[in-house]
Amino acid sequence: MIVVLKPDVTRIQIDNVIARIEQMGCKVEVSQGEERTVLGIIGDGQRLDREQLERMPGVERTAPIMRPFKRASRDFHPADTIVKLNGVSIGGQQLIIMAGPCAVESREQLLETAQAVKAAGAQVLRGGAYKPRTSPYSFQGLAEQGLRILAEVREQTGLLVVTEVIDPNLVPLVSAYADILQIGARNMQNYALLHAVGEAQRPVLLKRGMMSTIEEMLMAAEYILSHGNQRVILCERGIRTFETYTRNTMDINAVPLLKQLSHLPVVADPSHATGKWELVAPVSRAAVAAGADGLIIEVHPRPEEAVSDGAQSLKPFRFVELMRSLRPVAEAVGRGL
Amino acid sequence: MIVVLKPDVTRIQIDNVIARIEQMGCKVEVSQGEERTVLGIIGDGQRLDREQLERMPGVERTAPIMRPFKRASRDFHPADTIVKLNGVSIGGQQLIIMAGPCAVESREQLLETAQAVKAAGAQVLRGGAYKPRTSPYSFQGLAEQGLRILAEVREQTGLLVVTEVIDPNLVPLVSAYADILQIGARNMQNYALLHAVGEAQRPVLLKRGMMSTIEEMLMAAEYILSHGNQRVILCERGIRTFETYTRNTMDINAVPLLKQLSHLPVVADPSHATGKWELVAPVSRAAVAAGADGLIIEVHPRPEEAVSDGAQSLKPFRFVELMRSLRPVAEAVGRGL
Amino acid sequence: MIVVLKPDVTRIQIDNVIARIEQMGCKVEVSQGEERTVLGIIGDGQRLDREQLERMPGVERTAPIMRPFKRASRDFHPADTIVKLNGVSIGGQQLIIMAGPCAVESREQLLETAQAVKAAGAQVLRGGAYKPRTSPYSFQGLAEQGLRILAEVREQTGLLVVTEVIDPNLVPLVSAYADILQIGARNMQNYALLHAVGEAQRPVLLKRGMMSTIEEMLMAAEYILSHGNQRVILCERGIRTFETYTRNTMDINAVPLLKQLSHLPVVADPSHATGKWELVAPVSRAAVAAGADGLIIEVHPRPEEAVSDGAQSLKPFRFVELMRSLRPVAEAVGRGL
Amino acid sequence: MIVVLKPDVTRIQIDNVIARIEQMGCKVEVSQGEERTVLGIIGDGQRLDREQLERMPGVERTAPIMRPFKRASRDFHPADTIVKLNGVSIGGQQLIIMAGPCAVESREQLLETAQAVKAAGAQVLRGGAYKPRTSPYSFQGLAEQGLRILAEVREQTGLLVVTEVIDPNLVPLVSAYADILQIGARNMQNYALLHAVGEAQRPVLLKRGMMSTIEEMLMAAEYILSHGNQRVILCERGIRTFETYTRNTMDINAVPLLKQLSHLPVVADPSHATGKWELVAPVSRAAVAAGADGLIIEVHPRPEEAVSDGAQSLKPFRFVELMRSLRPVAEAVGRGL
Repeated sequence: MIVVLKPDVTRIQIDNVIARIEQMGCKVEVSQGEERTVLGIIGDGQRLDREQLERMPGVERTAPIMRPFKRASRDFHPADTIVKLNGVSIGGQQLIIMAGPCAVESREQLLETAQAVKAAGAQVLRGGAYKPRTSPYSFQGLAEQGLRILAEVREQTGLLVVTEVIDPNLVPLVSAYADILQIGARNMQNYALLHAVGEAQRPVLLKRGMMSTIEEMLMAAEYILSHGNQRVILCERGIRTFETYTRNTMDINAVPLLKQLSHLPVVADPSHATGKWELVAPVSRAAVAAGADGLIIEVHPRPEEAVSDGAQSLKPFRFVELMRSLRPVAEAVGRGL
Repeated sequence: MIVVLKPDVTRIQIDNVIARIEQMGCKVEVSQGEERTVLGIIGDGQRLDREQLERMPGVERTAPIMRPFKRASRDFHPADTIVKLNGVSIGGQQLIIMAGPCAVESREQLLETAQAVKAAGAQVLRGGAYKPRTSPYSFQGLAEQGLRILAEVREQTGLLVVTEVIDPNLVPLVSAYADILQIGARNMQNYALLHAVGEAQRPVLLKRGMMSTIEEMLMAAEYILSHGNQRVILCERGIRTFETYTRNTMDINAVPLLKQLSHLPVVADPSHATGKWELVAPVSRAAVAAGADGLIIEVHPRPEEAVSDGAQSLKPFRFVELMRSLRPVAEAVGRGL
Repeated sequence: MIVVLKPDVTRIQIDNVIARIEQMGCKVEVSQGEERTVLGIIGDGQRLDREQLERMPGVERTAPIMRPFKRASRDFHPADTIVKLNGVSIGGQQLIIMAGPCAVESREQLLETAQAVKAAGAQVLRGGAYKPRTSPYSFQGLAEQGLRILAEVREQTGLLVVTEVIDPNLVPLVSAYADILQIGARNMQNYALLHAVGEAQRPVLLKRGMMSTIEEMLMAAEYILSHGNQRVILCERGIRTFETYTRNTMDINAVPLLKQLSHLPVVADPSHATGKWELVAPVSRAAVAAGADGLIIEVHPRPEEAVSDGAQSLKPFRFVELMRSLRPVAEAVGRGL
Repeated sequence: MIVVLKPDVTRIQIDNVIARIEQMGCKVEVSQGEERTVLGIIGDGQRLDREQLERMPGVERTAPIMRPFKRASRDFHPADTIVKLNGVSIGGQQLIIMAGPCAVESREQLLETAQAVKAAGAQVLRGGAYKPRTSPYSFQGLAEQGLRILAEVREQTGLLVVTEVIDPNLVPLVSAYADILQIGARNMQNYALLHAVGEAQRPVLLKRGMMSTIEEMLMAAEYILSHGNQRVILCERGIRTFETYTRNTMDINAVPLLKQLSHLPVVADPSHATGKWELVAPVSRAAVAAGADGLIIEVHPRPEEAVSDGAQSLKPFRFVELMRSLRPVAEAVGRGL
């Protein structure tokens, strides 16, 4: 349940309402909007009498939240959440482009890619140091050495760094090097990991599981938010369907739907959602037109030599072309790039 | 297999090549492009000797077609097919908007809708006279009376009419009233019906089955094309997935992929692909940004009274807003509206 | 809604109840069970006052039917429907085995297969004369010649014949040769065809669409039943999922669920549900253990030469082995074979 | 690649072959069968010359393994793996039944259930102490207190205990109390956790991810096996499809397919695979008939009070009925219960 307070509610009235709710064994989360203060009731609210609450001074109305997510819900937090980080705002008017290789392979490879994507307009560098691979015999990433390379290239380029963390034990280490912690699709419901990144109080890029519903994704965000970590960025990266010509199916519906259901920023990953570099540009434009707050795109200087995901990586010159083609689309929907 | 002929090939050389191929028990389909003539070999080409063919005068090269579709393939027909009809070109630079109610309910309802969508810029009126319904107890459409209303409203507005045909026996009747015959998603692999519309030599709007792969869709188009009916328009209308917040999942990847694999025009149906009117506008913009040649959108003057699909129908004033918002997106990708 | 009448209800009382219901614009379908008579109300029952009905003489109770299917529902028809045909009962204690090639290829091929499956204990011969094929260039079946071969082999073996009909226009022709009309998976929602087989008053084997829900399947049955044709046999033949090692995924849950929801017989098709002959035997045993009333299995004397579906066809000697292994499983669940 | 050695191969010959392979940068895994020794080559075998290897003394033949899994493959380990544990053999002639509540709720609830399932013939007690829940606000399990209750009830009943572990950090703790570590469906590709249970050298029940292919499942097993932990039990627990009448779709095909592809024992979980207690018994019988080595079933004394999964839990008396009905089916396929 949420309790919407009157515009002229006083501090004492708020405290009284909170006290009444807590008396019934529930916790209260206060969301201070520009126009209204909203109280979110966390826990089993069945013992709370809505009519009684509505008769208390300062209360405008109460509303049940039918959706199981609360902190992630736009009902509870009507205004867009903007994740701010070193002067970069994710979720604002300006689109955010994250780009880079699937895996950090070497200092040279990463630096070359980083310089190219920065020149083309990207603000965030992506690159995996720990790679969750289907096979234990595939390249698993450079681990801490990869993190060091990421940090080094960040110093040299000024790009922010997003990288995946796959083990709760590694959250402190990865946090020491990266700006944004990525939860990969396979780990979207790895609750030990979600708790760990929630506690880390670092911005999190949460990728949708390849066969997770939109509701499950918002519930996964809820795990992170429940630690008071508000800086969650949702990422639609394609779902698993029966179609075999593409690696996954970009659920473009999810982009506007997530924006309606939640206040969190939404980015799209056309590289994984298609699995084919030839489709990355048109599907990127589609995601922006559908209202995405940004994109995360795989770029590799020599895709044919990439240790993973070569087929879906753009060469730098194609990334430049993509960025050029994105600008008018962004403007057409009132966004900047 | 396809045989690409030289730019300066003579009529006699072409006839010789065709004769050789037919000698081996295959049929030949000639595709006369602006720059090149291409021969498509239909049938089991295993007995044909590619090297021998390539040594014949006038032949530039041969290429196997690995995909099972031939006439629908861009390999065989490199230039875009533009379906022309009463001055309207589908598949050209200009986007085509088809709009109207799910079902024809009455003359008043259809005329009101038609005038509204025409004023907003649509070129084609949609509306079902025969409705394939999951339940035998649901409204099944006005049948021939619905067709008459469609034809009447076409007279009054000048809009083209697209309407669904669900029975091979009804193809002549529906053809007498409609400009474009629609094959619905449930009938995409109804081969008796595909043969019937192929023979009818009328433009066909072929909707993707909700459970069909892109390859199966192109094979369904192949059925129609195999009757020499070239005027097939492909329609991505969402596929069935595990997601339940939306009625279907728009496969946005399919839009650019179909444009790459095939020469046929591609339109998108955001109404069925989302099932929610709130998502129709952003997903429409996405489809245009991804390269769709047009859209088909459900519009109803009073969606709350619609006999079917009310939840996904736009009110006329929202359709006007959508059209307004589409124009800059179309321009951003080099298209007109 | 359904109206359950008292055991001692009189004819006059029944007529009075029916008249009241029809007065409100609904149709009534009478189901005379051994112990009770049940009235099914077809149409919008909202104007009917349940309390008033329950106060009428002869009425025991009323119950809403929440499921959209009525005539197919076990609520409406509590006892198992047994489809009887030339001394064969489908849906009774005895399991029914339908076996034969995917397609009728020649008299010799069909006769050889028919004799083998009959000797092994099958009661029904399957074989396609009209084949719905993904490609217009694939073998489409022997058409009427195939039907004649089926009828001839039926004469010689005494097996019943089930064969697919794909065009409403062909229903009379196919009915002239076959005992059971098969609606294929691709046509499960081909309503023109469902109406045609409903009117034909012949037993129908209705295959589940490869991406149709259980509810949609029962609604398709409802189309046939709504013509008063009660002899519908449901067939679970695997659904389309993301798994690629098998052609389809046998939805084994559907077998007991269909038996609970509906009174119609349920058979399973392990050949299509797996696409691999090595899996046919264990999945057949599973279907019988789950409560299927029968099986439909592809058998071909030389699968490596089959014009279609060779990979999933059993050789006759393997079919014999399968039948032998099925008997104890059938007995374990109280059925005979 | 695998290298099959001759029956009379000598120790020195084996060492020579291994040395040659390791020279090329690959690792070798020796599988000592009763009749043959097989060498599995782990790593990129492209530099290895198969003909050269086949000419070495003691080598019978080499074979490429096209499937990406090696240690989990039946090619590499032809004989069934039997997981032995305190006198219980999983994967042998005798079926293994694991039963118990979804979550450990109290000492009384668990003991009552354990005594009931033991009396009915179960050998293993299931019960979650750590529950991965979609919502952070749902009951998350009794944690270590739950583990203590499990161990206590094990003492009193002699049942083995299987319980889920959801965090690599908890593997030592859970191992101190449980006989079998369960990897839940959501964690099937949680590689940090797979490594941790691999290192723990305890038997592992690996549940298929609801969104995972059979190949991905075997690759997940490969992660555990790659630590030399051979005691992996595969569990088919239903996959996510478009069907909504059931919680998941039991992939019955997977049972015989896993037995063909792999040497590991396979159990089925009809409770999660259906989500409805009414379907648990028929689907259990189907799984046994399809060749499963065992079942894992949710049983709760009072399902209507269960903190989770009440709808799919059997009451003890129904579990007794199920066990009784399973025996003849087990015997029909040559197994004991």
